[in-house]
Amino acid sequence: MTTFTSIAARLEGQAIELPSWAFGNSGTRFKVFTTPGTPRSAEEKIADAATVNRLTGLAPTVALHIPWDQVDDFAALGRFANDHGVSLGTVNSNTFQDNDYKFGSLTHTDPVIRQKAIDHHFACIDIMNQTGSRDLKIWLADGTNYPGQGDMRGRQDRLSDSLQQIYARLSDEQRLVLEYKFFEPAFYHTDVPDWGTSYAQVSALGDKAMVCLDTGHHAPGTNIEFIVMQLLRLGKLGSFDFNSRFYADDDLIVGAADPFQLFRILVEVVRGGGYGPGSPVAFMLDQCHNIEDKIPGQIRSVLNVQEMTARALLVDTEALTVAQEAGDVLGANGILMDAFYTDVRADLGAWREERGLPADPMAAYAASGYQQKIAEDRAGGTQLSWGA
Amino acid sequence: MTTFTSIAARLEGQAIELPSWAFGNSGTRFKVFTTPGTPRSAEEKIADAATVNRLTGLAPTVALHIPWDQVDDFAALGRFANDHGVSLGTVNSNTFQDNDYKFGSLTHTDPVIRQKAIDHHFACIDIMNQTGSRDLKIWLADGTNYPGQGDMRGRQDRLSDSLQQIYARLSDEQRLVLEYKFFEPAFYHTDVPDWGTSYAQVSALGDKAMVCLDTGHHAPGTNIEFIVMQLLRLGKLGSFDFNSRFYADDDLIVGAADPFQLFRILVEVVRGGGYGPGSPVAFMLDQCHNIEDKIPGQIRSVLNVQEMTARALLVDTEALTVAQEAGDVLGANGILMDAFYTDVRADLGAWREERGLPADPMAAYAASGYQQKIAEDRAGGTQLSWGA
Amino acid sequence: MTTFTSIAARLEGQAIELPSWAFGNSGTRFKVFTTPGTPRSAEEKIADAATVNRLTGLAPTVALHIPWDQVDDFAALGRFANDHGVSLGTVNSNTFQDNDYKFGSLTHTDPVIRQKAIDHHFACIDIMNQTGSRDLKIWLADGTNYPGQGDMRGRQDRLSDSLQQIYARLSDEQRLVLEYKFFEPAFYHTDVPDWGTSYAQVSALGDKAMVCLDTGHHAPGTNIEFIVMQLLRLGKLGSFDFNSRFYADDDLIVGAADPFQLFRILVEVVRGGGYGPGSPVAFMLDQCHNIEDKIPGQIRSVLNVQEMTARALLVDTEALTVAQEAGDVLGANGILMDAFYTDVRADLGAWREERGLPADPMAAYAASGYQQKIAEDRAGGTQLSWGA
Amino acid sequence: MTTFTSIAARLEGQAIELPSWAFGNSGTRFKVFTTPGTPRSAEEKIADAATVNRLTGLAPTVALHIPWDQVDDFAALGRFANDHGVSLGTVNSNTFQDNDYKFGSLTHTDPVIRQKAIDHHFACIDIMNQTGSRDLKIWLADGTNYPGQGDMRGRQDRLSDSLQQIYARLSDEQRLVLEYKFFEPAFYHTDVPDWGTSYAQVSALGDKAMVCLDTGHHAPGTNIEFIVMQLLRLGKLGSFDFNSRFYADDDLIVGAADPFQLFRILVEVVRGGGYGPGSPVAFMLDQCHNIEDKIPGQIRSVLNVQEMTARALLVDTEALTVAQEAGDVLGANGILMDAFYTDVRADLGAWREERGLPADPMAAYAASGYQQKIAEDRAGGTQLSWGA
Repeated sequence: MTTFTSIAARLEGQAIELPSWAFGNSGTRFKVFTTPGTPRSAEEKIADAATVNRLTGLAPTVALHIPWDQVDDFAALGRFANDHGVSLGTVNSNTFQDNDYKFGSLTHTDPVIRQKAIDHHFACIDIMNQTGSRDLKIWLADGTNYPGQGDMRGRQDRLSDSLQQIYARLSDEQRLVLEYKFFEPAFYHTDVPDWGTSYAQVSALGDKAMVCLDTGHHAPGTNIEFIVMQLLRLGKLGSFDFNSRFYADDDLIVGAADPFQLFRILVEVVRGGGYGPGSPVAFMLDQCHNIEDKIPGQIRSVLNVQEMTARALLVDTEALTVAQEAGDVLGANGILMDAFYTDVRADLGAWREERGLPADPMAAYAASGYQQKIAEDRAGGTQLSWGA
Repeated sequence: MTTFTSIAARLEGQAIELPSWAFGNSGTRFKVFTTPGTPRSAEEKIADAATVNRLTGLAPTVALHIPWDQVDDFAALGRFANDHGVSLGTVNSNTFQDNDYKFGSLTHTDPVIRQKAIDHHFACIDIMNQTGSRDLKIWLADGTNYPGQGDMRGRQDRLSDSLQQIYARLSDEQRLVLEYKFFEPAFYHTDVPDWGTSYAQVSALGDKAMVCLDTGHHAPGTNIEFIVMQLLRLGKLGSFDFNSRFYADDDLIVGAADPFQLFRILVEVVRGGGYGPGSPVAFMLDQCHNIEDKIPGQIRSVLNVQEMTARALLVDTEALTVAQEAGDVLGANGILMDAFYTDVRADLGAWREERGLPADPMAAYAASGYQQKIAEDRAGGTQLSWGA
Repeated sequence: MTTFTSIAARLEGQAIELPSWAFGNSGTRFKVFTTPGTPRSAEEKIADAATVNRLTGLAPTVALHIPWDQVDDFAALGRFANDHGVSLGTVNSNTFQDNDYKFGSLTHTDPVIRQKAIDHHFACIDIMNQTGSRDLKIWLADGTNYPGQGDMRGRQDRLSDSLQQIYARLSDEQRLVLEYKFFEPAFYHTDVPDWGTSYAQVSALGDKAMVCLDTGHHAPGTNIEFIVMQLLRLGKLGSFDFNSRFYADDDLIVGAADPFQLFRILVEVVRGGGYGPGSPVAFMLDQCHNIEDKIPGQIRSVLNVQEMTARALLVDTEALTVAQEAGDVLGANGILMDAFYTDVRADLGAWREERGLPADPMAAYAASGYQQKIAEDRAGGTQLSWGA
Repeated sequence: MTTFTSIAARLEGQAIELPSWAFGNSGTRFKVFTTPGTPRSAEEKIADAATVNRLTGLAPTVALHIPWDQVDDFAALGRFANDHGVSLGTVNSNTFQDNDYKFGSLTHTDPVIRQKAIDHHFACIDIMNQTGSRDLKIWLADGTNYPGQGDMRGRQDRLSDSLQQIYARLSDEQRLVLEYKFFEPAFYHTDVPDWGTSYAQVSALGDKAMVCLDTGHHAPGTNIEFIVMQLLRLGKLGSFDFNSRFYADDDLIVGAADPFQLFRILVEVVRGGGYGPGSPVAFMLDQCHNIEDKIPGQIRSVLNVQEMTARALLVDTEALTVAQEAGDVLGANGILMDAFYTDVRADLGAWREERGLPADPMAAYAASGYQQKIAEDRAGGTQLSWGA
């Protein structure tokens, strides 16, 4: 049996990137509820993200979304982040909120609109050059709602061409990660609907192009850890967008809907070399706190990833291999479940305290008065949300 | 073989209610695209709906949504509708767009908020009394996003009590129809998630309470026509919200995603007495024309229902019974498919012309200049959408 | 925080019925793998079930399946069971393995075949009278594979009539539990596909008719604990068939696929009065150990139910109610998760030892030599499976 | 508008391979129903397949399954087929019905068992050399039922190695097609679960390795025509296994569950160059006629493919492109639906008669007396099924 002590060192340095947009308002097509204290600027989002990092030590970087986080001076924004103990991370492009993109962006039949979408990515790379970000993440909302509406084949070819142009702009230290999604906002076909499509597209680009796996972007019943295994095996898993779901792309807190699935995913990450120093896999959150408080929502999320990583590291891999090779179905499964059912929370609390962090970051946040302070301080102005 | 001639008379009087909100802007949580000519008032929505009816003869009533269609004088709005050849129909309540309802409405633990939601329904019944509407339709967005967030049992009991109070306000000619929905906007549990729950709740109310079946509100793979059969058998199918889906509650044009499913549904409607004079079942659309033109979107929709009704009526039910009782699997299925594969479009075009309607309402609308006219006339003002 | 000590007493008397057929061979349509030691008679199945009970104290009864467990003298079989420390439980009927039932049984259009199916249930009740069984469980494989093949409405009406005849034969102490299933072996429609149908049918019968919920018989994404809550609320939850699934009716070990779902189900069972003395809800397993060893598979299963019941009992319901009513989403969810993440295994081991049971029944079974013994003793004869 | 006349010539030469096993008994894990006249030998299966071809002109080849169709002299079997107007086609391997393969075949950890599975494929290639078959089709049942049971990564690597060895044995004229399947008979993970995995594996092999797409092997909601498009674009679509499904791998008659989906698939096949002379894509059926008559079941199936191919060819692609590029959502969808709703059955009947085929092959079969004849002639002997 593997002990917590033996894996404690491997928890050092775990980093989970926070999305700036998690701190703004989000909702469903039916309603976006607002909350006192919601940020009104990129700086306020970063301050909130830095609070999560201060209490957990798990979230040293913040992902930006352009144009939601567009500022005049990204170098200054980077310094602001550094002053708060974090730095700027992945840059996310957005080609789904302009009327021009109603029928597509990087896949559009109209060369003018397609060029506009490509240019937007060039602009994102310019920002990356200022922020020192490594990754350009592309989630494409392109797709169609009705059979016949678009020529799926032509769209795929144009996508390939557009990505090639964008890829050519990357520096040697930069990467392009292409996210796939089963459906939404398009309801008949999505231009990058599955890992196979993302894999085929990034493979055609080159070594600096990787796949981004969002845990909420699969068909019902999909074995996600298998895809994790496969992409790691193929050398193409670039990053995770963590969240959880019961139905569709619910964007709930990671681990909330199916903690055992998160465990299995992390077991494959560890198994396949996707965890630890030198791994090419970036861990990020991508969630919507529609009804729960945003900052504690993010704290809960990174803690969930950390707790489940600890459990994944606890798997007795030697005993597991023996049982697997012996065809001992119940024994092998039992070894996995032993790790999953181990309650690591007290050990992790002590581990945090040893590192000058609060044992219980959720309680520490509640006691900190931060939420009350921002609710008071951030009166007036326009709360940010996806639309801004 | 049943002929079109023999069923032509049964197509008379088919009525499909249009939702006023189909003419306003709608979208996804990512973006609401706007279109020139979108209505800025309840009257403009009704004018658009009346246009659909004028070209198809299929849509004599318009459903209202409160507060989206709130006006000072509903009697005047009714006269406006009549002047345009239509009348006002079902009244839909809305308890999902007020901050108070973040954690529930008719199920809320707070008696003040729950009373507010009940009062809203009383106000809807008042409007029904002015408009002469028969049906109060309740679609409840209530639910929770996280396990443990709410006490599902207590919520169900409070729902029951709230519905009882609302039901008690109905006149003898009025009905309450309770819609169920698998998920969204709630992502863990929904308080009326399935037909069984709606059936249990309305059965406890009385004869004037019925179930509303929205064709997009089921789990993947659900045999919807079975539910249609069962609710008709139990005497509790009150109305349909027609639309279609590939994934979730996509709200696409009815018949667009799976025309054969629509056919099977209508076969069961006819089989179970849900079609024709005296049937208690109201046909309505509930769709979102996110990217397609709204008025032709509605025209296409009612035509789809009409065409598929014709095919359903074409089923040779006598031959079918013989094959079914003989255990002739391929024969029975073949009789059903014969009707489905029959191209009724030319016959329906002629049928329309006999009745002074355009043979091809889609072409007639395109040729009418209406779209250009509203795009010009409706400059300025605020386009209506779900939020307003 | 609730402690194990405070709930230990509530674990007393938990009983999970084992299905006799779990000890026979089972498989998929592609292959039934065999294992040394598989029973060749009803007696050997009961001996295996008794072994599970001896090591766990959790499985005092064995469900029979007729005709798989048909014997000449059921009273003698009952005495055999008693001699092994268990007794006979629920009687399961079978109307899916006779050529006559190809197109239906209790729903068949042919009155002769339908009567044969009814008579089979009469025979089952006769057996119950001999065994002293309380429950007659009906899982109906009836359905169709192709649209049009059957008249779903007529089938439902005949089902109702058949059930009424069967119900009339029950004594005052006996019950009829009607199981529903989403699909399989029928692939277009199933005559009892959902809880709503089962509920409507048993409600029409009377107080002694209840619903059986098999945890693997739902559409993808279904919130099963909601159904548990609803059936308990309606007073119609008669029994559980426990197992787990990733895809369809996989019949895996309960808790193996989604332990958190099992936890949520048990939380609702406890919440709704479905657990403990006086509860009308019978716990049963219904699983297929296609590739794993059968006896330890059953041991693992009852332990999983016990462990998760302990976690469910650990929920701090008072604190939960406070958080729920305060709209504290993360707090309420956190209280639930606290119980789920608590590692109850060591406490349960001690609890077992106090009661003269092995702390680790899986290890005790492995050490017992029982498996080797039956593998040797049960040479020759015909191993039993679903088909026999 | 495209007319039938203009596409008639393109229907010439359409060929849909029949699986020999479709004529044997099949069923579910619950029951295999038998039918009079079921073949007792490979020759009788071929005779039945030849009957389908004689009446439809659509099924000139028969796929074999080894060992189900193992004979001493494959050359003689080929001559037998030729004498009946058909020839032998794809050879299907089977590594799922031997006890050795309980925990895997081409992926097994035990080198002895893995070699046995590889050798079986060598034997299949030997048969192909005798029958002149082009394609070796591998559907792999390998997978696990419980998390932890197997090391998914190691299994994938061993699969890769095994396939390489098999691939190396192919002649220049032969191909390997690798089928993927979402789940079943494994219920936790499948070693080739999706098109991406099959694509990655066959891409690593070389030009003679292709993907086989079985239309029933996807997650709920999957847009299958997108995968068709993508595989054609990537040059890796080798063959289809046609069937249809409502739930899982139901193996119903192609086009029976969702005819519009079959239409969309065929539209993409035509669009991407997968249809007609020179196309590398092989059309095959893979279905289970559990309750319907087998020979007419196969006739119905090839007719469904032919009818839907005709509709797919009827799409006015020029007009469609214009509408697509104009962003005319309803117009483009309408052009597609025009073709789908066109009733091609009378035209196809005439087309058949011109070619000396019966206008209505289903009726011709019923009138032929073949079914009665085989029911009488094939008395005695052992009916073949999947197991033999």
